[in-house]
Amino acid sequence: MTPPADAAQPAASTITNPTVLTSSTELASTTTTAPVQDASGGDSATTAAGSSELASIKTKLLASLGHFADFPIPGIKFIDILPLFRDPAVHVDLLRALELQIQKEFGADSAHKPDIIVGLDARGFLFGPSLALRLDAGFVPVRKKGKMPGPCVTAAYEKEYGTDYFQMQEGAIKPGQKVLVVDDIIATGGSAAAAASLVKQLGGELIGYLFILEIPFLNGRSKLGDVKMVTLLETDE
Amino acid sequence: MTPPADAAQPAASTITNPTVLTSSTELASTTTTAPVQDASGGDSATTAAGSSELASIKTKLLASLGHFADFPIPGIKFIDILPLFRDPAVHVDLLRALELQIQKEFGADSAHKPDIIVGLDARGFLFGPSLALRLDAGFVPVRKKGKMPGPCVTAAYEKEYGTDYFQMQEGAIKPGQKVLVVDDIIATGGSAAAAASLVKQLGGELIGYLFILEIPFLNGRSKLGDVKMVTLLETDE
Repeated sequence: MTPPADAAQPAASTITNPTVLTSSTELASTTTTAPVQDASGGDSATTAAGSSELASIKTKLLASLGHFADFPIPGIKFIDILPLFRDPAVHVDLLRALELQIQKEFGADSAHKPDIIVGLDARGFLFGPSLALRLDAGFVPVRKKGKMPGPCVTAAYEKEYGTDYFQMQEGAIKPGQKVLVVDDIIATGGSAAAAASLVKQLGGELIGYLFILEIPFLNGRSKLGDVKMVTLLETDE
Repeated sequence: MTPPADAAQPAASTITNPTVLTSSTELASTTTTAPVQDASGGDSATTAAGSSELASIKTKLLASLGHFADFPIPGIKFIDILPLFRDPAVHVDLLRALELQIQKEFGADSAHKPDIIVGLDARGFLFGPSLALRLDAGFVPVRKKGKMPGPCVTAAYEKEYGTDYFQMQEGAIKPGQKVLVVDDIIATGGSAAAAASLVKQLGGELIGYLFILEIPFLNGRSKLGDVKMVTLLETDE
């Protein structure tokens, strides 16, 4: 897995082995906290059926990803998520997989469901709103400072060559609402951590993070604290 | 209607009356071509029911928009679409209204349905993918040059202080596919026209443009040629 073109650019010195980005080819998702638990309250037959469906869909999603050598810079292999949106059958699969993954990791009953999906500009917008619709949750965007009108809360975000600022509109999250932060790929984790800061400034309860893919060697998980982080897919690139 | 913060910045000299942006308060959508026709092939009772539902939803959507004075610059009243995504009931209403509007303007039968929804970075991503799912169409993004991997087609886009370039991935649209270009707001029309150029470079059949809101005094319609342009909502600001 490799950095997206517009992700926080990792310092070149941190890319010690850009062509071998994970040590595992397993398709299962990973979490930073406890082993996978059935917190759904559903019966085990239902859970097993969901797990089987999820594994099957993940295989199809992995086969739909694009692979490009030397993008955005020489030596980097880039995995492209955009084909997931091009074919409506694959797009439906993506949303179904995200829903099943959330049920598996956070619980299927309404007490565990997020109230708000927070998505990061711009690729978190590609599936965050659709996921929110599917979960009957609200969608709230995080954007760079100055992009949104009205009073906003602000969080700093360290990039390679300086500091950037993210914002969320005040009132977009109500105190106590359960919030899931989503983005396409976790790289250094800086932008996701800034989003979490914004959620907390508004009094939201951050229940976790959800990404489609991870760049493991950048160790973005280390910036996210004790909150559960879930990635949908793993690749061996 | 006023320019969004990250839209092409109109030359200040074109803003002759920034606080009166349309001459009409009617809620009906507008098109650049012929008067609204029932091209759906459905019976008139069904069409009438759809029109009534659409009018009712539009009233609710208009009531959910945010209004901000002096953003992004003094003298501009800004209309904020982000609250439409915050409440899941309103979000569902938005998607339903877009679907009904498309059926009304382009026809409800499958022969008229778009095969591909093209959405512009970044706010076209907020509802383009959800709309594509609802229509069983593919979703293809337009992004600034260098953001996407692999071979891309490129179109220039004139901004106030120079030229920018938009891209679409080669192969994202197949020759002959019917394409609808969507974005949240049409301002000068430059970015939508560039998206249309990209669609044509890939051999797609551009059937029209769909926006949630329009800034009429910027006359973006004039850049879009003879292709049908639909705006979902009108306001009197």
